[in-house]
Order: sequence, then structure tokens, then C-alpha cells
Amino acid sequence: MTRVHNFSAGPAALPESVLQQAAAEMLDWQGSGMSVMEMSHRGPQFTAIAAEAESLLRELLHAPANYKLLFMQGGALAENAIVPMNMLRGRASADYIDTGEWSKKSLQEARRYGRVNVAASGADSGYTRIPARETWQLDPDAAYVHICSNETIGGLEYPAAPEVGEVPLVADMSSSILSQPIDVTRYGLIYGGAQKNIGPAGLTLVIVREDLLGQALPCTPTAFNYQVVADNGSMYNTPPTYAIYIAGLVFRWLKAQGGLAAMAAHNAAKSRLLYGALDASSFYSVPVQPAWRSRMNVCFRLPDERLDAAFLQGAEARGLVQLKGHRSVGGMRASLYNAMSLAGVQALVDWLHEFEKTRA
Amino acid sequence: MTRVHNFSAGPAALPESVLQQAAAEMLDWQGSGMSVMEMSHRGPQFTAIAAEAESLLRELLHAPANYKLLFMQGGALAENAIVPMNMLRGRASADYIDTGEWSKKSLQEARRYGRVNVAASGADSGYTRIPARETWQLDPDAAYVHICSNETIGGLEYPAAPEVGEVPLVADMSSSILSQPIDVTRYGLIYGGAQKNIGPAGLTLVIVREDLLGQALPCTPTAFNYQVVADNGSMYNTPPTYAIYIAGLVFRWLKAQGGLAAMAAHNAAKSRLLYGALDASSFYSVPVQPAWRSRMNVCFRLPDERLDAAFLQGAEARGLVQLKGHRSVGGMRASLYNAMSLAGVQALVDWLHEFEKTRA
Repeated sequence: MTRVHNFSAGPAALPESVLQQAAAEMLDWQGSGMSVMEMSHRGPQFTAIAAEAESLLRELLHAPANYKLLFMQGGALAENAIVPMNMLRGRASADYIDTGEWSKKSLQEARRYGRVNVAASGADSGYTRIPARETWQLDPDAAYVHICSNETIGGLEYPAAPEVGEVPLVADMSSSILSQPIDVTRYGLIYGGAQKNIGPAGLTLVIVREDLLGQALPCTPTAFNYQVVADNGSMYNTPPTYAIYIAGLVFRWLKAQGGLAAMAAHNAAKSRLLYGALDASSFYSVPVQPAWRSRMNVCFRLPDERLDAAFLQGAEARGLVQLKGHRSVGGMRASLYNAMSLAGVQALVDWLHEFEKTRA
Repeated sequence: MTRVHNFSAGPAALPESVLQQAAAEMLDWQGSGMSVMEMSHRGPQFTAIAAEAESLLRELLHAPANYKLLFMQGGALAENAIVPMNMLRGRASADYIDTGEWSKKSLQEARRYGRVNVAASGADSGYTRIPARETWQLDPDAAYVHICSNETIGGLEYPAAPEVGEVPLVADMSSSILSQPIDVTRYGLIYGGAQKNIGPAGLTLVIVREDLLGQALPCTPTAFNYQVVADNGSMYNTPPTYAIYIAGLVFRWLKAQGGLAAMAAHNAAKSRLLYGALDASSFYSVPVQPAWRSRMNVCFRLPDERLDAAFLQGAEARGLVQLKGHRSVGGMRASLYNAMSLAGVQALVDWLHEFEKTRA
């Protein structure tokens, strides 16, 4: 067995030790005689697994007790509807910051439930920068301000949570959650699909300040009403049990690595190495302006897109896989989530140099 | 490692060979150097996995080409809202048949989206029988007629699809799908959580006749609009990839066992053995009337509920686990989904006899 260096944007690489444990426990979880997949979600074994996952997540994030941690389903695209359904709270509109593909999808879906004020947009820069905070036209009566903390497709990231005053800040953190410490109290709500830094696709994380709950629109499906999910400990409907188990193993791994501060250092080192190599070359280019570059999704281009296939083919031959950029923007994308090793990034940098030499 | 006989109502037992293959492939799926969990849902490997799963499911069900097979998320409780959102199709009301806990949940949720006509109810029999078809007060203008094919909690099952004329029949088949051959063309829509006969929790199956698509309510989240899901081959949002992979392995296993006809014989033999033992005893009782008894969830009672704990403890000591009835009805419940062996049921019957002898 040879494991590859997997740069997928998501579903994405998982720590090898987590997969090893999952394989070893597949037919018999800790002497129970059952796979975790086979356990009632209300039985003592799975209840303990879910409680540990939640407790580790709270610890990793330093999330205060007035924040509910919800394990849901449907991913960020479902949350694009579920967020306004739950968070408009009788207000007429919400503010959205448009920084690329994912925030655009969020605001388009939100328009079906209320008025959306696009308070700022990076469109005029071709989404190569996040609009400066002082240009945002925020509405003090907005139900919330929505940002996408990290644009997985465009490769942009907020360096820090923007200041938005008293209006709750809502963040799609699908592709950056758990990659560095955050101050949860700066947010009213954080959501994200698990399939990048957390675990398997099919699990959605929602972290919400409890005073914002309880005012869902009448059309909200009960299974997606945050209050109901919170009141039932994420077990109103049967949760994605196996995905929660894997997420719990990843949380344990994160803690053993030194928690989110260690992850931040690890991730900074990887992205510094890769952006450094790209910037030192006149062959490759990075569209996103330096201040806004994502640590998670490094998007870059070759001088001629006719070279893309050869670059990808050579990469694959070296065990560097899933480097193709999203079909909507083209180019290359190297996703450097927590489970990507520095050695994997070094191998990619070596290939960048080698390819450039043969083609330049 | 000792595997138990797992009678859980769901998440439930899976075929051991499926779990063995999943464990063996956990770190490296077929030489890809990746776990299935780590693959982009749009890459060639996972695309092939999903296509094979869909194709096997279509083959097992003999589903005609005008039925769409959708892989969704949220389980049957989410579908309780998603179904009326998609299926009311501009009509004022839908007919629901109330046969117990699950159909009650369905009709209560549907009331939030349109008028619900409870066309028949088993309440007056204490949900020990399904109301006779000739007593149903169906509305010829209803958007659809909703049934729960098998009530997992109460242990009732429709012996066959009821005749409802031109109005589309919608069935929650969470706990009976793939347990026997069905005539898909008798239904407008079939839905079900995967965690009983199919695979891990977190995957929802929807089988829908394509002419019923395209008229979702405006409030329907895009990720739960059947038309959008169908148009995007169940990849509008990132699907629960690992759960689809496991489901595909289960579908292969079902085919190797001889398909649904073989499953029907296997399941009939198991439930006959267990009901036979229960009926032959004056110690145990089965609340559900014989004609309506579920082949999947065998609910029974001891003469005194103060004996329940000792019964369960002795069962557990013999490797017979998750036999406790649902908290809303009490008693015992043995779920006999496809992956439960006849030997497992025989072991339970042996324990029934042994326990009765010591206590009667």
C-alpha cells in the first residue's frame, strides 16, 4: 500500500492514524462486537462516542457554554437556506459580503427567505481581494452579517474575524474551521461541512449562540430547526453516526498534535512554503493578492493552460493527486488542510521546480 | 473478536463481509492510495463508486428509467418536510394514513406546508392493525397518499402496496426497503433512511417518478429540491460519500445473495421462526394482529415489565443485543433486517425458551 499526497479540496485527506484506528475497529468497536455503523444512536456506546466528540470540539475551540454545538446534515449548501430560516428572527434583511463562489451561493439562496443586502463585493477585483472593511455598507438593523471565512474555490481567506458591532456575525467556515484558534465569541453562528478539516462528507457542524435560537421561520423543516436540534442533543433525527465517530477521532488527533495553536503553526508553515515557491517563480502565478491568500486552498496558474494536463499527469505519477482547480475557475489548487503534511507540500514544491525547468 | 447478534432497529447490523471489505480498503481503495472518505466526490474514483451504487440499486429494485434514484441527507424526519415541499405540486392537500409513531410524525410535519387529510387511522385499535383499505376516506384531488410501509416502532407492516388509483402513492420505506421485491411503478415516491437495510445513517434514499418533479414550494431549500438533486446526479451538494460507498457494497452483497427474492425468503423464514415461538408461548405476547405483523421489527412483551431488565441482561450475556423496545412503547423489539442471520434468530428463540422456563 502506498498512500498518496492528497490535495483534494474536499472530501479531503484524513490523518493516517485515524484511518488505521477506524479500520482496526470496523468489525468490533472496543469489544462491543459491533461496528460503530451498526450501533443504535441512542445506545450507551454511541451516546458516549457522540458526547466525547462534542466535548473535544468544545475544548479545541474554547467554545463557551452559551454556544450550542450541533451535528447536522446537508453541508454548507443546505445551510445556505437553513441559516436564513433560523437566523432572520423577524428582521427584514441580512447583510452578505460577496467574496466569491461560495458567498455568492449563500446570498443567492438567502434571497428566497428575506431581503439580502450585499454590503460589499470583491467582484470588481475579480475576487482577488476581500473588500476593505471600511467600504462595507452594513445595515445596523440587519438580522446578521454573513461572511465566507475562506473561499475554497477562489483561494481567499479573511485574516481575522471582521468587526461588525452588535449585529451577529455568521460565518461559513467549511474550509478553515479547526485550522487555527478562533475567538468563538466574535461570532453569532459558525457553520461548515465536515469534509475538509474534520471528517467524512455528510456531517455538518453548527456552532450557535443560544440567545439567537427559537425564532425560526414557520417553513423551517423541524429537522433543521436549530432550537429543536439543540434541545435534542443533535439526535432529533438519526445523526450521521459513523461520520461523528470519525470526527471524534480527528478531534482526538488534533488535541494530541497540540490543539489549534499547533495546527495554525503547521498550516502557516505549509502555505508559506508553497506560496514562497510560487512567488519566487515567474513561471507560476497566484491570482489572489498576498494579504488575502488562503492558507487552506492555494490557487495558482501555469503560464499557459495547455500545460495543465501535463502538469497534473506528472504530479499524479509522483503521488501528488487532486490538484486540479475547480471547474468554474480553472488552474491548479492545492488544498493544505490539517491532515496534509509538510512533506507533502515539499514534494509538490519539488515538482513545481522540476516541471518549470523542463517547460520554461 | 466476537461479533454479536445485533437486533438494533437502526442504525443496524451490516453484512460482515461488507465491513471486512471496508476495513481492508480503509487506507487505500483499490490502489488509489486514498480512503474513499478522502476522495473528491467529483473525481473519477468516487464517480465510479456512486454510479455503480445507483446502477445496482436500480437493478435490485427493477426501477424503470422514468424513476430517479436520489442519494440525499437528513433521514426520514427531514423527508417529512421535504416530501410535502416537493410533492404538493400546487394542490391544497394530501392524504395520510395514520398507522403509528412514524406516520404520525409524517403527517404532523406535513401540516406545516399544506392541509392534511387523515384518510384512515389505526388509533382506535391501539395501532395493532392497519385500517382496512375499504375504510379509507381518500380525496381524489389529493396531491398524494402517504403511507409508512413498515412502522419500525409499533411493528406493523403493509403486506402489499395499497391500491389508491391515480393519486401518487408516497411511501416511507425506511425500515423495509430492499427486504423483498416491490413493484416500484405502484409508487409515485419512495423514501427512506439508509440505516436499516442499506448502510450507515446519514444517507437518505429517494426514488421518485420524474413527472412529479419540478413543482417544489418556493420555500424549499435548493439542496432538498428533488428536481435540482436529480439534475445534478445527487451531487448538487457534496453527498455523504462514504455512506454511498458502504451502501454500494451492501447492494453488491444483496445481488450475490440472490437479490430481493432471496431476501424475501430469508426474511420470511426469520420472522416466521420468531413469531412462531412467541405465539406458541403463553408467556410472551405480540400486540400486533397477525395479518399486519412486520417481518422487520418483531415487537413483543413479557408478562410483567419488571422482568424486562433480567430478560435483556440475559440476552446480552448471550450476545443478543439491542432488543429493548422503543422508549415510547416499551417491551421488546427484535429487528430482523437483511443482515440478521437465521442463526441469530434461532439464538434468540433459544433464549426465549430458556428465560420462560426459569420465570414461568
